Amino acid sequence: MGLKALDYESLNENVKKVQYAVRGELYLRASELQKEGKKIIFTNVGNPHALGQKPLSFPRQVVALCQAPFLLDDPNVGMLFPADAIAKAKHYLTMTSGGLGAYSDSRGIPGVRKEVAEFIERRDGYPSDPELIFLTDGASKGVMQILNCIIRGEGDGVLVPVPQYPLYSATISLFGGSLVPYYLEEGANWGLDVNDLHQSVAQARSKGITVRAMVIINPGNPTGQCLSEANLREILRFCFQENLVLLGDEVYQQNIYQDERPFISARKVLMDMGPPLSNEVQLVSFHTVSKGYWGECGQRGGYFEMTNIPPRTVDEIYKISSISLSPNVPAQIFMGLMVNPPKPGDISYDQFVRESKGILESLRRRARIMTDGFNSCRNVVCNFTEGAMYSFPQIRLPRKAIEAAKKAGKVPDVFYCLKLLEATGISTVPGSGFGQKEGVFHLRTTILPAEEDMPAIMASFKKFNDEFMEQYEDYRSYSRM
Amino acid sequence: MGLKALDYESLNENVKKVQYAVRGELYLRASELQKEGKKIIFTNVGNPHALGQKPLSFPRQVVALCQAPFLLDDPNVGMLFPADAIAKAKHYLTMTSGGLGAYSDSRGIPGVRKEVAEFIERRDGYPSDPELIFLTDGASKGVMQILNCIIRGEGDGVLVPVPQYPLYSATISLFGGSLVPYYLEEGANWGLDVNDLHQSVAQARSKGITVRAMVIINPGNPTGQCLSEANLREILRFCFQENLVLLGDEVYQQNIYQDERPFISARKVLMDMGPPLSNEVQLVSFHTVSKGYWGECGQRGGYFEMTNIPPRTVDEIYKISSISLSPNVPAQIFMGLMVNPPKPGDISYDQFVRESKGILESLRRRARIMTDGFNSCRNVVCNFTEGAMYSFPQIRLPRKAIEAAKKAGKVPDVFYCLKLLEATGISTVPGSGFGQKEGVFHLRTTILPAEEDMPAIMASFKKFNDEFMEQYEDYRSYSRM
Ligand SMILES: Cc1ncc(COP(=O)(O)O)c(C=O)c1O
Ligand SMILES: Cc1ncc(COP(=O)(O)O)c(C=O)c1O
Repeated sequence: MGLKALDYESLNENVKKVQYAVRGELYLRASELQKEGKKIIFTNVGNPHALGQKPLSFPRQVVALCQAPFLLDDPNVGMLFPADAIAKAKHYLTMTSGGLGAYSDSRGIPGVRKEVAEFIERRDGYPSDPELIFLTDGASKGVMQILNCIIRGEGDGVLVPVPQYPLYSATISLFGGSLVPYYLEEGANWGLDVNDLHQSVAQARSKGITVRAMVIINPGNPTGQCLSEANLREILRFCFQENLVLLGDEVYQQNIYQDERPFISARKVLMDMGPPLSNEVQLVSFHTVSKGYWGECGQRGGYFEMTNIPPRTVDEIYKISSISLSPNVPAQIFMGLMVNPPKPGDISYDQFVRESKGILESLRRRARIMTDGFNSCRNVVCNFTEGAMYSFPQIRLPRKAIEAAKKAGKVPDVFYCLKLLEATGISTVPGSGFGQKEGVFHLRTTILPAEEDMPAIMASFKKFNDEFMEQYEDYRSYSRM
Repeated sequence: MGLKALDYESLNENVKKVQYAVRGELYLRASELQKEGKKIIFTNVGNPHALGQKPLSFPRQVVALCQAPFLLDDPNVGMLFPADAIAKAKHYLTMTSGGLGAYSDSRGIPGVRKEVAEFIERRDGYPSDPELIFLTDGASKGVMQILNCIIRGEGDGVLVPVPQYPLYSATISLFGGSLVPYYLEEGANWGLDVNDLHQSVAQARSKGITVRAMVIINPGNPTGQCLSEANLREILRFCFQENLVLLGDEVYQQNIYQDERPFISARKVLMDMGPPLSNEVQLVSFHTVSKGYWGECGQRGGYFEMTNIPPRTVDEIYKISSISLSPNVPAQIFMGLMVNPPKPGDISYDQFVRESKGILESLRRRARIMTDGFNSCRNVVCNFTEGAMYSFPQIRLPRKAIEAAKKAGKVPDVFYCLKLLEATGISTVPGSGFGQKEGVFHLRTTILPAEEDMPAIMASFKKFNDEFMEQYEDYRSYSRM
């Protein structure tokens, strides 16, 4: 009998080509060890609640009431829920036709999209059109949908930062396009050099690839940098010159841990630049309820906003959204709550501020503890996490370690991270999963373990690293810096 | 300046080719009319809660508690929630690491997948492996993922019933495959003739298309038929002979409105057939929380179960699931509750049974009222809705109406449905959105409007149809039957 369609050999080749490290070998091994009873510290995914971050109370109260609307008629409801949560639940339930159990419009509930538009207007100082905002099951699904619309085949290239969050490389493979890398400069705090961009495009062109879009991740994952306004201007000018759609992954916009470089949206900078750019450059910006001080990853809520995308294209994107009927409705409510949180004077305001500030301030301290911990190892260098949720230290590996890795059939940083996992239970992602320059090695960890556990985790890392170095150091040579 | 990547002309051609009628012209016009203040009866999508169906209380209580786990520590929780809902919420929260706010395993929470496997075993009498069950954001996302793995290009064909639910045609277009139609026989109560299948495959082959998979929708959408065990055997034998993966869309398995043909899963029939079929035929079965008496469409919860799919392929499918991190967690809990509902003796059992039976029995009566209503119009014939949520009457259109449609630049059934919408507010989907034989015309409506409204809706339909016929009838000719 011949091959069947779901035999490995006859699968869609693009599916097989996809690489996805965040849940790859390290994660699988960590899961195994956990099953065997080992205590694992999962720092492989930016998944705050999994590491003990508590959900914000107010939004959970509102969504719980939306799930159980019959409670709103119960005279005792006030014993468990504050009045403003009750009012908000009613507010969102009126926006739906049929509550959380009904498919919404495939673009999301119109009322929530309006709240998102108002949020963007407050943030950027320019009006935003709800008709150009689509709600999604997390930012991931939005990114995949837009790339699916853009990519026609391997002749279509997408500029992606290296190191990058592998959603991009995986999706570009899945849809059969070409990833065109541009390198972030580790020595310049993971900054982006526009001259390199021109080079990347020229190089792609010489291979017959038309570059059609550019991805920026701001703040960066895994690199943690925040793009400056000047840098964003250069990028937008570059996209204008090269006729590229800019995909602005801004899911970490609320995760900022320094004051010098506040978050500025690509859209605001574009609008500030005025015509012709402001009405020419095509921009799609992504946001989510998974990050910030929310960390509501499991709810799967996100949106994208389109700028300078022609109506016929918007219609096509709408049509594609329709195939899967609607994004999940509870997460749409979370999105509404995220862009329109309690206001001064509301009953729940103080608690909301206390909770959210507590989370952000602790993340700021944890970013510091982690960077300092890594930098205290002599073979490790690490830029400070300006934003997002990750630390991305470079590990200088001695030649003996690289040889041992080769012998074990492993990429050197995978080898290192596996040893780290076995020794300490710390589950990281090797730098090779995000891309890195030839011959340098990194790992990525989140800054999310509980603050009180952080010193012990860093001590445990240091101890492992010292022992690893003792075992493999040959006092002669290192991977280059 | 040249075209930009998101200008209509330069979009992925597969995206443009997608047709999606369920939320197409009729739906858009209905939404416009609604904005203008007209009362619209949305029967275009199987969206029960949007038409007033109340959610089942128990699962909503459980998920509300999971959203607000701090309530579990509140001494007053028992005033609003029954003890078994509290226990169930704890049960599911223990299964997650981080509650509803944490990404789960990309395949879904292991504990819920185990409950699904147990449900399948109870239903079919054969064990099921949780490792071969993946939870999804609704059945739609599962179907799309599997088709994405199967389709390599336009040389790959997928057998799809005509009429069909347009998820299939749309997804096959989106991924650049070829739809190979097989026709359901309206005169034989929408039965499936295996001889036709052989013909369809031969015809496809003569065009250079390799047929790799076959879709069955059982119970049928839009056609409402239930496949008999004998028919399922023939289909499985055919898939075995032709080396096809069978995609079993069984989302309506709880929606059965007659006693002669109970639902039988494709998997049970396959297992009953024994070797070689039972360990050769590749089968993927889909289910959802959107249908049955649940109707939790907005939650976006589903699963697929794989049979005879090799481990390496399962790994690839897992990898693709990983790209978007995890299905939404609240809907995973709904899935757990659906496959493992309250049992006799539980506090909430009686209420649960009362609510669910009430919904199903009313649907059964509504299926009858609707079929009879359509059949009372002399130019309409309609098979009884044996299962699912739809009525799919054939409308015989007089030649004058067909000519008027042509003049208006409309497909005849679109023309008819638009007139129906404008006259009555009833928003249906024209048969052409699902596929139908040349020269015959249908519309699809759900059986979901509230039972008490049903007689008025059918009267309003009849009145419209009479007037339409009066206007266009020419006493000479009809579309053929
Ligand atoms: C840079 C970046 N973009 C997008 C996402 C996806 O987020 P979600 O799909 O949960 O909204 C993540 C998640 O870690 C991310 O790091
Ligand atoms: C036959 C069929 N399959 C799949 C679906 C998708 O259901 P969901 O994605 O809500 O699970 C539907 C929805 O109407 C359907 O009718």
